[in-house]
Amino acid sequence: MTDPSVINLVSSNKCFEGFQNIYEHSSDELKCRMKFAAYIPCAESSKTLPVLIWLSGLTCTEQNFVAKSGFQKYAQAHKIIVIAPDTSPRGCKIEGDSEKWDFGEGAGFYVDATESKWAKNYRMYSYINSELHEVIKKNFTDGKEFKVSIFGHSMGGHGAMISFLKNPNKYCSVSAFAPISNPINCDWGKNAFTGYLGSNEEVWKDYDSCCLIKRYNGPDAEILVDQGLDDNFLKQNQLNPQNLIVASQGNERIRINLKNREGYDHSYYFISTFIEEHFEFHAKHLKD
Amino acid sequence: MTDPSVINLVSSNKCFEGFQNIYEHSSDELKCRMKFAAYIPCAESSKTLPVLIWLSGLTCTEQNFVAKSGFQKYAQAHKIIVIAPDTSPRGCKIEGDSEKWDFGEGAGFYVDATESKWAKNYRMYSYINSELHEVIKKNFTDGKEFKVSIFGHSMGGHGAMISFLKNPNKYCSVSAFAPISNPINCDWGKNAFTGYLGSNEEVWKDYDSCCLIKRYNGPDAEILVDQGLDDNFLKQNQLNPQNLIVASQGNERIRINLKNREGYDHSYYFISTFIEEHFEFHAKHLKD
Repeated sequence: MTDPSVINLVSSNKCFEGFQNIYEHSSDELKCRMKFAAYIPCAESSKTLPVLIWLSGLTCTEQNFVAKSGFQKYAQAHKIIVIAPDTSPRGCKIEGDSEKWDFGEGAGFYVDATESKWAKNYRMYSYINSELHEVIKKNFTDGKEFKVSIFGHSMGGHGAMISFLKNPNKYCSVSAFAPISNPINCDWGKNAFTGYLGSNEEVWKDYDSCCLIKRYNGPDAEILVDQGLDDNFLKQNQLNPQNLIVASQGNERIRINLKNREGYDHSYYFISTFIEEHFEFHAKHLKD
Repeated sequence: MTDPSVINLVSSNKCFEGFQNIYEHSSDELKCRMKFAAYIPCAESSKTLPVLIWLSGLTCTEQNFVAKSGFQKYAQAHKIIVIAPDTSPRGCKIEGDSEKWDFGEGAGFYVDATESKWAKNYRMYSYINSELHEVIKKNFTDGKEFKVSIFGHSMGGHGAMISFLKNPNKYCSVSAFAPISNPINCDWGKNAFTGYLGSNEEVWKDYDSCCLIKRYNGPDAEILVDQGLDDNFLKQNQLNPQNLIVASQGNERIRINLKNREGYDHSYYFISTFIEEHFEFHAKHLKD
């Protein structure tokens, strides 16, 4: 197995003075070749830059966020390295991994699968929260420890919140756009968790933000959540951000700052409109 | 034939308070159904908003600019309607219209073809400079006259410059990213002009920015041109922006403001970095 920290540059485009790069490496967790995006701002200081990890939604690759959100302007302004991984293992050729848009390829749901068919490759939780950190440290922060926050969209908003809640003290802050907030109570989540984790719903709770908020015991934290009110998936009860607020009412360590945005939908046009505010939020925490 | 001014809304996404809409209509000039993008900023005033037309490059549709450039933030800030048409007729099923990426579909080159095979449909010059203006007037400015400027990228930078230079007093200002500046002297241009206009090179000069600059007799004008210095098409001599400066030296009515950008390439990462400056440039002229 090739060392996951050995990365190959696939493409590099100068953008807002920094570089938007795409890399490829061999993932040990996922047992396949993976691509990820890294925006490296232009910075004169030799100080270790903070890192912000973006997790994308269903059907996305490492490309969507970097091509459509316009985040690079704010990553450069705040001098933050931004890492955007793919949303699932790729090319593993597991039967049924390409038939549905909401399960298998492009739909890893940021869990470590336990069902035997998926358990070897579908380990996105460990990929994001362990392996990727080592890759970042060895390649982008000169081997030094770094401050890191995490955010994402839809399935990736779910991924960001569970990553934060399950790892107190690891991430400085978390935010989400239109997250799947309570996957154990929506169709997307039930379907994916059944497939990856089996039918025991008790196990699912380890990957459900609302359950994790109730039992969170880390430092006081605010979770910034942006939600468009014309989002069809909100109307279909796939997202349920209000459940985050209900869950947080039993735990004073967590405050949900839910911003309801009149007229906005689930698209990158919504994300691009409010991405600047998310960078301001994370920059404040990453520089504390 | 359906009235070209009758437009159907294909999609609508709220973005930076305004709406990024896609419309479809029947073009009389092109004899086919065409899509175009229109960003309508949120504005309380009933004053007629100014309009900025964006022309895209080879292989693009009406989607690339609206999804990747991040322009909506600046269109909203300056309260400018932005119209981004497709780059060629579509679905006309002319033999050879889909075999090459630099000729036929996605490569209309903003000329009115005279070669018989293409002359019926490939009339992008008249589509942009006549028909589209009527569509805008009837649908977006309440039937009132409006101020309009034009800009574009690569093939669309060429299209923007020739549109401006051939129509003194029609456009308030023009700018371009990495334009094909002297098509009669590069491979892309020679190939396209031979195909659409025939072999008489004298005819080509009517669609060549450098030739048009020499004979321009309109109001004094500055053309803003952004060019990445790591642009592979610059290195392959497809763009030749320096020829604009040489051409302008014989005509004091035209000033070329060529901004060479170290390290930037031909992509939308380059465009997104400098799009704000182009909006500032056009806003100044549209509000004079």
